[in-house]
Amino acid sequence: MSFNTFGHIFRVTTWGESHGPALGATVDGCPPGVALDESVIQPWLDRRKPGQSRYTTQRREADTVEILSGVYEGRTTGTPIQLMIRNTDQRSKDYSDIEATFRPGHADITYFQKYGLRDPRGGGRSSARETAARVAAGGVARAVLGDLVPGLEVQGYMVQMGPHGIDRARFDAAQIDRNPFWVPDAQAATDWAEYLDSLRKSGNSVGAVIEVVARNVPPGLGAPIYAKLDTDLAAAMMSINAVKGVEIGEGMGAAALTGVENADEIRMGAQGPVYGSNHAGGILGGISTGQEVVVRFAVKPTSSILMPRGSITRSGEATEVVTKGRHDPCVGIRAVPVGEAMMACVLLDHLLLHRAQCGAGPRGHIG
Amino acid sequence: MSFNTFGHIFRVTTWGESHGPALGATVDGCPPGVALDESVIQPWLDRRKPGQSRYTTQRREADTVEILSGVYEGRTTGTPIQLMIRNTDQRSKDYSDIEATFRPGHADITYFQKYGLRDPRGGGRSSARETAARVAAGGVARAVLGDLVPGLEVQGYMVQMGPHGIDRARFDAAQIDRNPFWVPDAQAATDWAEYLDSLRKSGNSVGAVIEVVARNVPPGLGAPIYAKLDTDLAAAMMSINAVKGVEIGEGMGAAALTGVENADEIRMGAQGPVYGSNHAGGILGGISTGQEVVVRFAVKPTSSILMPRGSITRSGEATEVVTKGRHDPCVGIRAVPVGEAMMACVLLDHLLLHRAQCGAGPRGHIG
Amino acid sequence: MSFNTFGHIFRVTTWGESHGPALGATVDGCPPGVALDESVIQPWLDRRKPGQSRYTTQRREADTVEILSGVYEGRTTGTPIQLMIRNTDQRSKDYSDIEATFRPGHADITYFQKYGLRDPRGGGRSSARETAARVAAGGVARAVLGDLVPGLEVQGYMVQMGPHGIDRARFDAAQIDRNPFWVPDAQAATDWAEYLDSLRKSGNSVGAVIEVVARNVPPGLGAPIYAKLDTDLAAAMMSINAVKGVEIGEGMGAAALTGVENADEIRMGAQGPVYGSNHAGGILGGISTGQEVVVRFAVKPTSSILMPRGSITRSGEATEVVTKGRHDPCVGIRAVPVGEAMMACVLLDHLLLHRAQCGAGPRGHIG
Amino acid sequence: MSFNTFGHIFRVTTWGESHGPALGATVDGCPPGVALDESVIQPWLDRRKPGQSRYTTQRREADTVEILSGVYEGRTTGTPIQLMIRNTDQRSKDYSDIEATFRPGHADITYFQKYGLRDPRGGGRSSARETAARVAAGGVARAVLGDLVPGLEVQGYMVQMGPHGIDRARFDAAQIDRNPFWVPDAQAATDWAEYLDSLRKSGNSVGAVIEVVARNVPPGLGAPIYAKLDTDLAAAMMSINAVKGVEIGEGMGAAALTGVENADEIRMGAQGPVYGSNHAGGILGGISTGQEVVVRFAVKPTSSILMPRGSITRSGEATEVVTKGRHDPCVGIRAVPVGEAMMACVLLDHLLLHRAQCGAGPRGHIG
Repeated sequence: MSFNTFGHIFRVTTWGESHGPALGATVDGCPPGVALDESVIQPWLDRRKPGQSRYTTQRREADTVEILSGVYEGRTTGTPIQLMIRNTDQRSKDYSDIEATFRPGHADITYFQKYGLRDPRGGGRSSARETAARVAAGGVARAVLGDLVPGLEVQGYMVQMGPHGIDRARFDAAQIDRNPFWVPDAQAATDWAEYLDSLRKSGNSVGAVIEVVARNVPPGLGAPIYAKLDTDLAAAMMSINAVKGVEIGEGMGAAALTGVENADEIRMGAQGPVYGSNHAGGILGGISTGQEVVVRFAVKPTSSILMPRGSITRSGEATEVVTKGRHDPCVGIRAVPVGEAMMACVLLDHLLLHRAQCGAGPRGHIG
Repeated sequence: MSFNTFGHIFRVTTWGESHGPALGATVDGCPPGVALDESVIQPWLDRRKPGQSRYTTQRREADTVEILSGVYEGRTTGTPIQLMIRNTDQRSKDYSDIEATFRPGHADITYFQKYGLRDPRGGGRSSARETAARVAAGGVARAVLGDLVPGLEVQGYMVQMGPHGIDRARFDAAQIDRNPFWVPDAQAATDWAEYLDSLRKSGNSVGAVIEVVARNVPPGLGAPIYAKLDTDLAAAMMSINAVKGVEIGEGMGAAALTGVENADEIRMGAQGPVYGSNHAGGILGGISTGQEVVVRFAVKPTSSILMPRGSITRSGEATEVVTKGRHDPCVGIRAVPVGEAMMACVLLDHLLLHRAQCGAGPRGHIG
Repeated sequence: MSFNTFGHIFRVTTWGESHGPALGATVDGCPPGVALDESVIQPWLDRRKPGQSRYTTQRREADTVEILSGVYEGRTTGTPIQLMIRNTDQRSKDYSDIEATFRPGHADITYFQKYGLRDPRGGGRSSARETAARVAAGGVARAVLGDLVPGLEVQGYMVQMGPHGIDRARFDAAQIDRNPFWVPDAQAATDWAEYLDSLRKSGNSVGAVIEVVARNVPPGLGAPIYAKLDTDLAAAMMSINAVKGVEIGEGMGAAALTGVENADEIRMGAQGPVYGSNHAGGILGGISTGQEVVVRFAVKPTSSILMPRGSITRSGEATEVVTKGRHDPCVGIRAVPVGEAMMACVLLDHLLLHRAQCGAGPRGHIG
Repeated sequence: MSFNTFGHIFRVTTWGESHGPALGATVDGCPPGVALDESVIQPWLDRRKPGQSRYTTQRREADTVEILSGVYEGRTTGTPIQLMIRNTDQRSKDYSDIEATFRPGHADITYFQKYGLRDPRGGGRSSARETAARVAAGGVARAVLGDLVPGLEVQGYMVQMGPHGIDRARFDAAQIDRNPFWVPDAQAATDWAEYLDSLRKSGNSVGAVIEVVARNVPPGLGAPIYAKLDTDLAAAMMSINAVKGVEIGEGMGAAALTGVENADEIRMGAQGPVYGSNHAGGILGGISTGQEVVVRFAVKPTSSILMPRGSITRSGEATEVVTKGRHDPCVGIRAVPVGEAMMACVLLDHLLLHRAQCGAGPRGHIG
């Protein structure tokens, strides 16, 4: 509803710029009594942290989260949780030349047009650093989900880098944590390393597609129209920097299917309905079916590249822009934990909304 | 914020079911003094109306809009505008057999699981009829936009039906209103007619991709993070029934591009910055650039088909489902005016948000 | 969040003007499965209906509610409920002279200054007729509360008319429905009838204080800061036309008390904590205690009077205004059912919010 | 909409507890380009700071505000402003005995019933320390208002302490800053000092009434029904700790007036309409008239007193509670700057809302 808040009931407001003293997330509406301290959140931030391989920016940030409120003696109190992450490697330098030009493909021109000024230090609010705050909030959401829905899991991985997709036949979830790309395909990990090394050396960058899956989501989360579970997932993913497309289940590919192909057949299983396929991505009519919830999103290549591109200055003169300094050759890599965090926040929000309107658990029993 | 409302300031709440007495939209936050009566809205509804060709459902609805409030002597008063459309062809019949089974790919199973009951008459709230209310609200948004931003245009068209995409080289906007598919390619119109006839006769259905473009959008609409213009467009399109994917500009294809390819170069034009390309779809960092805003979304094939699919009954017994009666072989056709309506509503909402935070017009001057 | 909506989860948006074709309320977020039809709502509207005694406007409105959506076979479906009430006695007449002047104490001058126009027919949106929509929505809230919290009761009554307060020593709830003023004091009913007759004949009007009490409210409803139960009650009551003050428990009188006097002592009862007094009005720190929730609000005298008052025309010329036609000598009378409706809506909203954040029932057990 | 947020567009979310490491406010939706740094906000915090006289708690807090985001080179950027205030005098001690009992008139019992736990350190979230965050946010709102509406002023003062009201005939605004009670009546200041000394020594406390006035508010702010300016003011004031009543203009006293007395007569002045009186408190139909906006609220006496009151323990046993340590004999004193801050935030929010819906300035011209 507001400019920097998402969520209906479990509401997260992120704040902070790339090069200010700190950034963070104000988390409101968290259920009380959930075990929480920094150690529960920090591991998720560590996954997103830059500088862990040669494929992400060499900026060195500890990304240490501090809980400033909302927790007493290791339990959430039900009041707002303030999560703060200090910026420690913001490197003071002269931004005057950057301030006078606009990078093609970057938000600095639109920020200037909208606000009449911008914070040029590392991109200010448009920096990928903002996503650290999302990951911290996602850590809170995961802690609560773990409490409310035992077995619920959220996992993200990369399924495409530049033009190179994974081979679904080789899908191996065990590989995800074993390579710098979070790719579930050992062969792709090797191939992509070579590809990205070459791009990185040339000063170029490339896009990616991330898939995030949630398992053991109870049926019944979501709502028919504007608070559809897929509506909120689409908004959550599209709100991440550099995302240009979002898909649920078959996604854009659903257009090419016929009704016969697309209809996931249903049969009765031991614990309820079982589906023969999951073209729907676990959501029908905006409401979860109990199948895996499957979301994909495309991240464009970062506009901060070492190769020159034509642009203009604030006074309208032609210029060429080359972005020196640290950058991510494939910013999609760090988007994997961010996508997971958004999925966790949206699922928790809808779990709470469902409790509000319908009480605990699904209401209609089948079988 | 709510289950059936979208928009931050220009807020639209739709209500009503497929087979109830009426449906409509409550439009709140509309600027005052804008010329408005039914004749301004009706033409947009007429475009969406079913039964205009053999390619849409044969249900006959006049879709006549009535303005019940918020307008005095032909001008909006600034108070809520109630738009009501009566259902006139809802055909009373016995729904008891439908009520006991679940259609594969349809929301009736999740509605039942969530709410413990459902309105089986024509799909109830999940029916595509709900989109009539959106188109009516979009008519109000267009009237206000016309007042506030002369020259702003919103146009939708179909770019893919099933596996068949248009040939962009043949793109001819003049064709859009000349065929039942709103396709800007005369050859595709002919080919698709043949394809869809064949599908329709077999009782099958098919998906589609719609593109919606807005021209002469001022730069500066949107906001950095969770009220990004693309976030709200993604949510708006994903909230339409049967939509499974949303793209801005290059969309999912952005993943395959390098930074050099993706960066839209900028030069100075007579009235401001001019871009050499529009991979960004008119939005950078969540804020409009002044280029065309380009959104695409995929509509899955309707699940109401005449070919049998395996399913279960409420008591868990195996069954086969065939959906008799009127249906849309390509429900994506009617989604074209709906996508336009959502675009108009989102743009107006962001125009008002921009006025609120930044005053009139863009603030940063280039050149 | 919006201009014409109240509630966080149980959200009511009212629409319509005094002299348009209809007015109503869009109720979103209602729990599913609750028994509801027009007969459940109509009795509450009948209580508020004008023209039932010589002390309310002689406008004749049936105030018949129609449910247009959200109910199937006598049960709420969980989707938006549209409640429509047709205006049947709006009397067409020439409003040109009214349109050019401003009534002292009336919203017509501020509507004009804000919007540049106004709907002069019966006051348009500022008319007390808008409250019919609130009462209808309150009828839905009561039906749901009855389902979720057996024994919860909401009752309003008048405790002051003009300078004449009731004698609390004579308080007799059985009297409330036996006089046209909803006053729980038989003697006051007699005295006030005489007083109001005299005022009415002179063409004057008078203010009133209404008290609304809710019994058997479970402890734990509300939240610490900006969604405090008393915050939302204050907003709900102050949003009613003509209300100028709101009190919880001791209200403004709390200022005169010392801490010793004000602290409601606690002892242990059979079913939980019992309080020796209720200065707090059933709310501590924004959260219900389980005692009676007590709210009072003051309604100013209607500005539509037959006695002349100095004013100006739209062109700034001095004039005298006398409001001819039907009016309420004490509009506070009809505010009694409206206050009850607002209390019911706020309590239900907070009950749902509590379920969302904390699950069912109070969490901390005492004893 | 959320638990700890207020405002529609200028949105303030406060966070933090009395004895945690810090507390603060996340301010979202602030217009860009406004001059702002800590020195602009700090003076307002200094006014509210405890320990400035013997009549407020002896807790020593510097209440130094730090701006962590949203400001670049001394100007707001339009992105979220994080305001942090460290707690420096939170005194570690053993809370085990407090944790097991409930103070009569205090939120600790309802927090426990709602959440199943509470933060007993200084009252946790229910502490008056939370209001420091409001004052900081109010400082931002004042800076923006100063930029947008030159001449707009907000001023609060105390008009009643315990049973002792001021004499309006002696009203002297110049006195407000010259005494520890912010009272505009030199005689009252002397009398109250004596009264409060006596109360303080006996370990008792007392309530107060605060009046807040805004001058040079443009006409046209507000909206007809649920976003009425008075609705939002009522909510804002009632959300302050310990407030039990809110009045606009005549407030509860409006009930005693007749329509003739209450109707503020209008005549034409040099710059627009001029009113002969201000019973309305500057608001008609929810919209500002251009007169002074006048709000009053009652603060109950703090429940933390040295005199014993009967209560129970968590296990339900009878006990007596005496609250040792630092406390405010009249917490209403510190509520004066808080009421001003809330007024500033609400006015700015409505100014932005008005710009959104109606553009700049009032639309209807009189004269």
